[in-house]
Amino acid sequence: MTTKTVKIGICGLGTVGQGVIALLAEGGEVLSHRVGGSIELAHVATRTPRPEVDTMGAKDSRDVFAVAHDPDVEVLIELIGGTTVAKDLVIEALNHGKHVVTANKALLADYGEELFALAEERGVVLRFEAAVAGGIPVIEAVKTSLAGNHVTSVAGIINGTGNFILTEMAAKGREFSDVLAEAQALGYAEADPTFDVDGTDAAQKLVLLASLAFGARIDAGAPYKQGVDSVAPADIDYARELGYRIKHLGIAKREADALQLRVHPTLIPEAKAIAQVDGVLNAVMINASGVGELLLVGPGAGSRPTASAVMADVISVARSLAANEQPDIHSMGVSVNTLSQPAITDISEVSSAWYLRLDAEDKPGVMAAITQCLSHHGIGIESLIQKPESAALAKVPVILLTDEAPTRAIEQAIAEIEALPSVGGPVTCLRVENF
Amino acid sequence: MTTKTVKIGICGLGTVGQGVIALLAEGGEVLSHRVGGSIELAHVATRTPRPEVDTMGAKDSRDVFAVAHDPDVEVLIELIGGTTVAKDLVIEALNHGKHVVTANKALLADYGEELFALAEERGVVLRFEAAVAGGIPVIEAVKTSLAGNHVTSVAGIINGTGNFILTEMAAKGREFSDVLAEAQALGYAEADPTFDVDGTDAAQKLVLLASLAFGARIDAGAPYKQGVDSVAPADIDYARELGYRIKHLGIAKREADALQLRVHPTLIPEAKAIAQVDGVLNAVMINASGVGELLLVGPGAGSRPTASAVMADVISVARSLAANEQPDIHSMGVSVNTLSQPAITDISEVSSAWYLRLDAEDKPGVMAAITQCLSHHGIGIESLIQKPESAALAKVPVILLTDEAPTRAIEQAIAEIEALPSVGGPVTCLRVENF
Repeated sequence: MTTKTVKIGICGLGTVGQGVIALLAEGGEVLSHRVGGSIELAHVATRTPRPEVDTMGAKDSRDVFAVAHDPDVEVLIELIGGTTVAKDLVIEALNHGKHVVTANKALLADYGEELFALAEERGVVLRFEAAVAGGIPVIEAVKTSLAGNHVTSVAGIINGTGNFILTEMAAKGREFSDVLAEAQALGYAEADPTFDVDGTDAAQKLVLLASLAFGARIDAGAPYKQGVDSVAPADIDYARELGYRIKHLGIAKREADALQLRVHPTLIPEAKAIAQVDGVLNAVMINASGVGELLLVGPGAGSRPTASAVMADVISVARSLAANEQPDIHSMGVSVNTLSQPAITDISEVSSAWYLRLDAEDKPGVMAAITQCLSHHGIGIESLIQKPESAALAKVPVILLTDEAPTRAIEQAIAEIEALPSVGGPVTCLRVENF
Repeated sequence: MTTKTVKIGICGLGTVGQGVIALLAEGGEVLSHRVGGSIELAHVATRTPRPEVDTMGAKDSRDVFAVAHDPDVEVLIELIGGTTVAKDLVIEALNHGKHVVTANKALLADYGEELFALAEERGVVLRFEAAVAGGIPVIEAVKTSLAGNHVTSVAGIINGTGNFILTEMAAKGREFSDVLAEAQALGYAEADPTFDVDGTDAAQKLVLLASLAFGARIDAGAPYKQGVDSVAPADIDYARELGYRIKHLGIAKREADALQLRVHPTLIPEAKAIAQVDGVLNAVMINASGVGELLLVGPGAGSRPTASAVMADVISVARSLAANEQPDIHSMGVSVNTLSQPAITDISEVSSAWYLRLDAEDKPGVMAAITQCLSHHGIGIESLIQKPESAALAKVPVILLTDEAPTRAIEQAIAEIEALPSVGGPVTCLRVENF
């Protein structure tokens, strides 16, 4: 019996590409057994030479398109990132009948529908386990393991940089900007951390997760975004006093005729396991009609964890090819033709409980005035902390947890509270999810 | 374009079978899109009639073998449990060219190798996501998502009854037997709870998980077992005082030339997320060469969660059949011919840190005598609690956490400690895993 060799090509030999090569090299006989054949690295391409990387004798090109055009290559791994050259490369590879594996969340959030459709048309796969939550196999879980369920919500810590920053702020009472600088020094945050901080990175991953979970076409710009920089150390402390942790979550929820999609700092009851996921770890909590609640926790980034996810996709394809079977070409678990296009609920209509923090004069009638602003808009109060008077401060911090109310209502109430003469400065407002 | 209908049969309409029918009925158009065709319940069989269950117009037999012989049925779901009739049924179904999905961990722990080999020989699948950790997709994770890794260890809370009992003991300071009775009344424990209590149920699941994770043939009797009934409320309290939680874990670890397989109560540092998994939930922590550490948490039993796992397997097969592709027939992710047969490390050689609890006279020299028994055997002490003298007690509790030492060494040290005149009664001894 001859066993088949599946030839792969890697475009981009940065941290993830090097991780993939390491796992390939370490795979040995076990990897061959799992594939039912062998995987050969046939071609690598990097814009600048990478002589320090042992590419196992593969062809080595400066032009990534050479891999897409290489008749030897059956599976192309796109690890160059970005949405310009990467898009052209993936299209070229699919058009040349290559199966494609990518870790590129930005590309798929922006152009997924077009690329998934092209893959189906060409009869090849476009897989992306590594694009969301790094090493956590959440794409496979939603696409395959929960296929007998209707997903009702997904909520995830899907940006490790943001979680590292919040964890450090909580552990050491440090300011956001201070911890961000440290994260950059440690290599946990990019030189330009805008997309990690403002929620863009998490929103791209959320779009992919929600598309899969709900079988839906979703625009990259659909999620509401509030950045992790809107949290102050004082909020983390007060939240803890109230029995909550603050995490920066991507949340997608199915409503009757629409979807909620939002990325924001969130107070979570400390007894929920996801509230305890700290540091650079990621976590995804899925609620679904059959299973109930699932939580998956693991490394959301890094060379080897991300490579583990890339390899899962590569092996899945290689296993089919080695058995002379057609791999499953439905990137979304269903044909793109069957995807729905649900309405996205405007953030002003999204209800949640709320955490408010403000400074107010400590004199009779002030609390009554504040609570009246809330009750005007039908918002009840769940708990309230008023910090004791201090000689040093003209005003004292007041912290409120409210019942559920729509964003529009809380915003109107806050405008009224901020206009009270006894209240100083803006009201800090964060969402609470009791899950 | 005509879409294919995949016909399935269910043997056993207990709680899981009814869950499967519920998820099928709820699946609707989305399920058809995921399958790329439709699933039809063609035949059900139960020993006694179940008129209360709506079987969607399926044929209804009293003889489960009628399903295995039904030429209409392509996929047989075995939910009758046990290892006698179920074994014959699965063999008969495989021999008749049916794909089989089962939730039967006892059957596969005892006869998996034979049945998986038969499935491969007949060119059909034998899938079992529901057999381990209920709704948590841990089989798929290990088999597919971690295929690019070498797994180094698996540690799981894989018996919900045991976890419920420990959680209740911890929350209310109640005795084991008392909580067990309540668990039986609530339906969380079987009328005969032997297999939940003594670790047999967890050991069966561990054998399946470890077989997959390590590509190994493992005998059902291989794991060392210590029951959850070896934990007293006092141990839970003292563990907490030391910063630990006690969980009943199934643990499999790869050593250089052998495997460790063991099921026992375990002290885990409270900061580890798995230490916080309470109630009837299950959790599986996997360490692997690429991804590092993954944790999966969810419901380990129950009608709909277990049905969710069964449906994942059914849909996976149906999707291939609907596309006229051959489903992947390798139940273990590799051909059974390639499974290794590693040695199992004798429990006496397994090292871990240890928790010891004993009663000793509170007088000079006693602690020195105890610590000397440990140091005789090369065992260092990590921390020690001596409870204050009480007028009511001739002896006081002493709690020790040791450094890592083999089971043999700690047992010898304990025998010496128990022989000290100043120590009363047996020494309680539990393993500590710092992970």
